[in-house]
Amino acid sequence: MKNQICELLGIQYPIIQGGMQWVGLAEMASAVSNAGGLGMLTGLSQATPEDLTKEIERCRTMTDKPFGVNMTIFPTINPPPYEAYIDAIIASGVTVVETAGNGAIKFMPKIKAAGIKIIHKCVAVRHAVKAESLGVDAISIDGFECAGHPGEEDIPGLVLIPAAVSALKIPVIASGGIGNGRGMAAALALGAQGVNMGTRFCATQEAPIHANIKQALVDADERSTNLIFRTLNNTARVLKNDISDEVVSMENRAGGVEFGEIRHLVAGARGREAIREGNPNDGIVTAGMVVGLIHDIPSCADLLDRMVKEAKEYLDRASSQLG
Amino acid sequence: MKNQICELLGIQYPIIQGGMQWVGLAEMASAVSNAGGLGMLTGLSQATPEDLTKEIERCRTMTDKPFGVNMTIFPTINPPPYEAYIDAIIASGVTVVETAGNGAIKFMPKIKAAGIKIIHKCVAVRHAVKAESLGVDAISIDGFECAGHPGEEDIPGLVLIPAAVSALKIPVIASGGIGNGRGMAAALALGAQGVNMGTRFCATQEAPIHANIKQALVDADERSTNLIFRTLNNTARVLKNDISDEVVSMENRAGGVEFGEIRHLVAGARGREAIREGNPNDGIVTAGMVVGLIHDIPSCADLLDRMVKEAKEYLDRASSQLG
Repeated sequence: MKNQICELLGIQYPIIQGGMQWVGLAEMASAVSNAGGLGMLTGLSQATPEDLTKEIERCRTMTDKPFGVNMTIFPTINPPPYEAYIDAIIASGVTVVETAGNGAIKFMPKIKAAGIKIIHKCVAVRHAVKAESLGVDAISIDGFECAGHPGEEDIPGLVLIPAAVSALKIPVIASGGIGNGRGMAAALALGAQGVNMGTRFCATQEAPIHANIKQALVDADERSTNLIFRTLNNTARVLKNDISDEVVSMENRAGGVEFGEIRHLVAGARGREAIREGNPNDGIVTAGMVVGLIHDIPSCADLLDRMVKEAKEYLDRASSQLG
Repeated sequence: MKNQICELLGIQYPIIQGGMQWVGLAEMASAVSNAGGLGMLTGLSQATPEDLTKEIERCRTMTDKPFGVNMTIFPTINPPPYEAYIDAIIASGVTVVETAGNGAIKFMPKIKAAGIKIIHKCVAVRHAVKAESLGVDAISIDGFECAGHPGEEDIPGLVLIPAAVSALKIPVIASGGIGNGRGMAAALALGAQGVNMGTRFCATQEAPIHANIKQALVDADERSTNLIFRTLNNTARVLKNDISDEVVSMENRAGGVEFGEIRHLVAGARGREAIREGNPNDGIVTAGMVVGLIHDIPSCADLLDRMVKEAKEYLDRASSQLG
């Protein structure tokens, strides 16, 4: 049997690097693609559509393998020029786009018309079913464990992945909580055809992140994340540190919290600078619960080779226990 | 390769029925054991130690296979006579005890001295490591998805199971979120040697539960549970219904909630009567997120045969995708 995600995306291993703000640069994406997975540039980490065009060109000089671009499209008061970003992606000849957010729906016909494969990322089975009906090629389903935005329904992968697989005809990519061969084996056993990883790729040699932050991920355990912005219905899972602890404590305060109060705190928390300059307590650092399973900082090639080899071993070993 | 949990417990399939208040009676436990798994009587569902002795004897008339007794021991103001229950179990010749709660620690030497195997159920890796050091034979690790008490750290099985497997030498039983062959396959791939199920066994022919409640489990989806008593640091996952919705809404109220207020509400919610008399809105009904994966009401024998067969198929199919 062949793997549908590998065939769909033209890659060797069914392992995808998810969109990551400030991290999804050409260094990261090309390293993952060169290792046999699908690297992903983060569209909105580039200040303008023209910058994204240049970053795609730069990535092409670093790998001749396929890579994708993530476009996360939420309604905001002052939105970036989303359509110009989409046009830049189409003009660049990129073959895969990872979409996320309700706002992506209106751009899907245009992306599809350009012959680009769409992986749509979502956190709920009913949203996945809707996206399938709109013609996306694969669903990346994001469980409660995940870094960034898990939504407000808190369904972990062990239940969410098989529920999505049952409800969909298109292939499912399991996202959230996966960082090693065991997680990959479990995701495939649950019916996913591939895995998406973010946090695990942050702790690789090639990730454009300060060494201190990579070490903070290695040092963390499974309890080292916080859910912030829950009271704003915009929950985000981030690394536990002084700042995210303070946000949680403000949100837990009797009477709730005003957005302005948190925004003041978060605006002072320099997430981008923290991951570049290496002080994990200096900003809000996005990370998933899988930090508890990250114990080293390998190259992307070593990571992917090891994961696939171990996943197969774990699957065969588990099967042999059942006679 | 053989399976350590099957060898340890003397059973055919590495599938264990977890302790369930009001449900873990001889009808349930004997059905699971006769189907090749390990059935489990719930010690405290019997009003006195003498009643437990009689229930164990009754279960023996219904199966000649091994079954266990669950003893959940939390400190309370007016505790039941825990030691007398333990003595009744030891005197009965039961070969397996599932312990849960910190209070179980002081009884472990006595249980072990009687040659009884101990499965200790817990929700955190550090508690599992402690229990291993005290000499228990296996750990049942309970993820955030689970029915009943997931603890306050909210670590789902996809992360918690491999973290526990890495930290322990004794075999691990995966609990929470598992209800079919996919979940079983994933648990074994994550390194567990067996699975524990509660909610899934409630939706079987033999469960001593009203047919309306079984149907309510089938009708539920993965979003049909509530976490209650979170504000009391005693979180419980239960079926979403009018009463649990009201508890959540009281707990979310600005300013928090007093235990007395909730107790009044819960005391009026007749959980035991609800599952016997068949009105799911009449009481608090414990259920895990796996309700979203339950679509039928098979016999225990059909359920276990199907799960093991499908788990093996899913493992082999996943392995074949990795070349």
